[in-house]
Amino acid sequence: MIYLDHAAATPMDRRVLNAMLPYFSDKFYNPSSPYIQAVNVRRDYEDAKHKIASLVGGKTDEVIITAGATESINLAFNSVNGHVITSAIEHPAVLKCALNHDHTIVGVDNHGLVEPNQIKSAIKPDTQLVSIALANNEIGTVQPIRELSMIVNEERRRRAMDSDNTPIYLHCDASQGAGQLDVNVARLGVDMLTLNSGKIYGPKQVGLLWVSSLVKLKPLIFGGGQENGLRSGTENVAGCIGFAKALELMTEHRGHEANRLKKLRDKLQSELSGAFPDAVFSGHPKHRLGGHLHISFPGLDGERLVFLLEKRGVMVATGSACSANKGTRSHVLEAIRLSPEVADGSLRLTLGHLSNDDNINKATTIIIEEITGEMKRVGRC
Amino acid sequence: MIYLDHAAATPMDRRVLNAMLPYFSDKFYNPSSPYIQAVNVRRDYEDAKHKIASLVGGKTDEVIITAGATESINLAFNSVNGHVITSAIEHPAVLKCALNHDHTIVGVDNHGLVEPNQIKSAIKPDTQLVSIALANNEIGTVQPIRELSMIVNEERRRRAMDSDNTPIYLHCDASQGAGQLDVNVARLGVDMLTLNSGKIYGPKQVGLLWVSSLVKLKPLIFGGGQENGLRSGTENVAGCIGFAKALELMTEHRGHEANRLKKLRDKLQSELSGAFPDAVFSGHPKHRLGGHLHISFPGLDGERLVFLLEKRGVMVATGSACSANKGTRSHVLEAIRLSPEVADGSLRLTLGHLSNDDNINKATTIIIEEITGEMKRVGRC
Repeated sequence: MIYLDHAAATPMDRRVLNAMLPYFSDKFYNPSSPYIQAVNVRRDYEDAKHKIASLVGGKTDEVIITAGATESINLAFNSVNGHVITSAIEHPAVLKCALNHDHTIVGVDNHGLVEPNQIKSAIKPDTQLVSIALANNEIGTVQPIRELSMIVNEERRRRAMDSDNTPIYLHCDASQGAGQLDVNVARLGVDMLTLNSGKIYGPKQVGLLWVSSLVKLKPLIFGGGQENGLRSGTENVAGCIGFAKALELMTEHRGHEANRLKKLRDKLQSELSGAFPDAVFSGHPKHRLGGHLHISFPGLDGERLVFLLEKRGVMVATGSACSANKGTRSHVLEAIRLSPEVADGSLRLTLGHLSNDDNINKATTIIIEEITGEMKRVGRC
Repeated sequence: MIYLDHAAATPMDRRVLNAMLPYFSDKFYNPSSPYIQAVNVRRDYEDAKHKIASLVGGKTDEVIITAGATESINLAFNSVNGHVITSAIEHPAVLKCALNHDHTIVGVDNHGLVEPNQIKSAIKPDTQLVSIALANNEIGTVQPIRELSMIVNEERRRRAMDSDNTPIYLHCDASQGAGQLDVNVARLGVDMLTLNSGKIYGPKQVGLLWVSSLVKLKPLIFGGGQENGLRSGTENVAGCIGFAKALELMTEHRGHEANRLKKLRDKLQSELSGAFPDAVFSGHPKHRLGGHLHISFPGLDGERLVFLLEKRGVMVATGSACSANKGTRSHVLEAIRLSPEVADGSLRLTLGHLSNDDNINKATTIIIEEITGEMKRVGRC
């Protein structure tokens, strides 16, 4: 089996699982219980949160552990009630949250890049949130978050000069980027950052929202007052410990891994490009996740290709995992103006820890064979 | 170590962990991915949900898997916008959610029992929700949910006769009761039921809200549209598999276990009662969880007792784990009119899988020794 769908899910790192296991058994205590064993569990939880905060360049009390990126995104949008701006290629969670506010959805260029000046033009007097993902989950395009940060900061300064206290925040969903890109909140210049443990070889159903002290967050879930009253519910101790370990491993190996994946991806792209001159590669040629390859075969059926490759032991995605099983065309591919004929023949190949020279070579051969066969079948060559 | 705090947290059953482990490694796929391995993971997830639904007497599409009881409760309250009724001894999650609505908080008797007629009298024309826990987490009192159901149903019929389409629902948080009481939704007669996997030897940060088809639920968390659009976010496959296993084991052994714990608890109560004639036992003498023992030693300091017992290897709680570490007096003990002097000397001993004849005998001896010593110290005997 060759797994080429790391953007949809990653296997938990064995070291992450080992870090978590004690909290399922010996250290199962409720971190709010009063005896020393439980107090130690609370300390381990806080230490893990502290490590997570440090790894994104924030403080412990700026981090809220959630049940995943979707909850984090909803929590970020819950901090504002005015106008919001996002892009046409965001994850459904961001787009759905934006729809619950007065909103502007800015378009992207053919490579899926958000144009900072479009964001700037979309800012209205009551704009309170700009939410842009670090990297797109379908085509891998990496956005100029730092430039967006400067625009938001400039607007914030302008308002301050006008004694206008309407807040404006920049939220960045870095779920897809964290494995390969720097997610330091200060260097990105964001006010809120979403991360997803399940995308970086950590436990699933764990995420975080990092929130600068600027932001006035309102809870979505009320109760016992955990996470400084911002997210109630008994703390996910094992999940947080696992997330911290995953983020630590990720940060340690990020540079090397990003290079490794980019080399493998470039070779794969080059071979597929050579074999299929009509294939369309989407995503920015330069500003793109190293492990991402989005390729379209005009006139072929992406879902059928997934099935054919699966029979040969190669696991790939059509669009994003979130919309892939709904039978609708990807909003991302529509936004970058791929024609329906091209979009419908798309595969997303995403490399990661399970990828190596050997299995990428094998996958390349299999993909070329299957696509060639399919092209013959439908009379495209 | 003798663990007497099963109401705060339970260790995960080894069989539950074994059922979950494959979904952390080999079966880590995103259930929305299109290839057969991921489709199989989706099927396993749906099968687990189906099992969970069957075990509470509901249908699969009536169950929403959440990140725990607190989220489930918030989701239940999100289904209504009118007046809500709850009791003074509910979990903070219920009380905080009630405060976000027009609300009536009914009192309880000295045993912590909700009086159905008080609920009936509190119903107003725009009452949309009655939310009462199956069993109280501090004193173990079990509420007459079936009687409350008849009251809510009667009001529903009355409204229907008047062509009044204002809905009214009964929500029951059965987080504390599920280990020892029947949680069949039809037999309870509820419209919504909350369960918490972490209280029944399943994984933490997993819960469910069962919702009858009567209820028009509105999502709290928007995104990819998972859980029939009612709770977005990649499904918690491992968590749901573990929850199903825990609920299955629980259901299988519930009757036997409830009896076993009741016998152990009654023996413990009888010995402590004999040794300390002035001790006050709270919770209903008859309608009470079998494994629950709430005991107060007037004039002693509960927090100090926890510390003394911890040094002897016995882990007990003062109030509820949720409020225990906040330095405030328990709202439950206030509601049952325990005087501050009595309330402040309270311990909650909750038995469970880790309890047996041997360690309960040992704990009894240690508790008697420590309390006796403490009474001498403060001059109470």
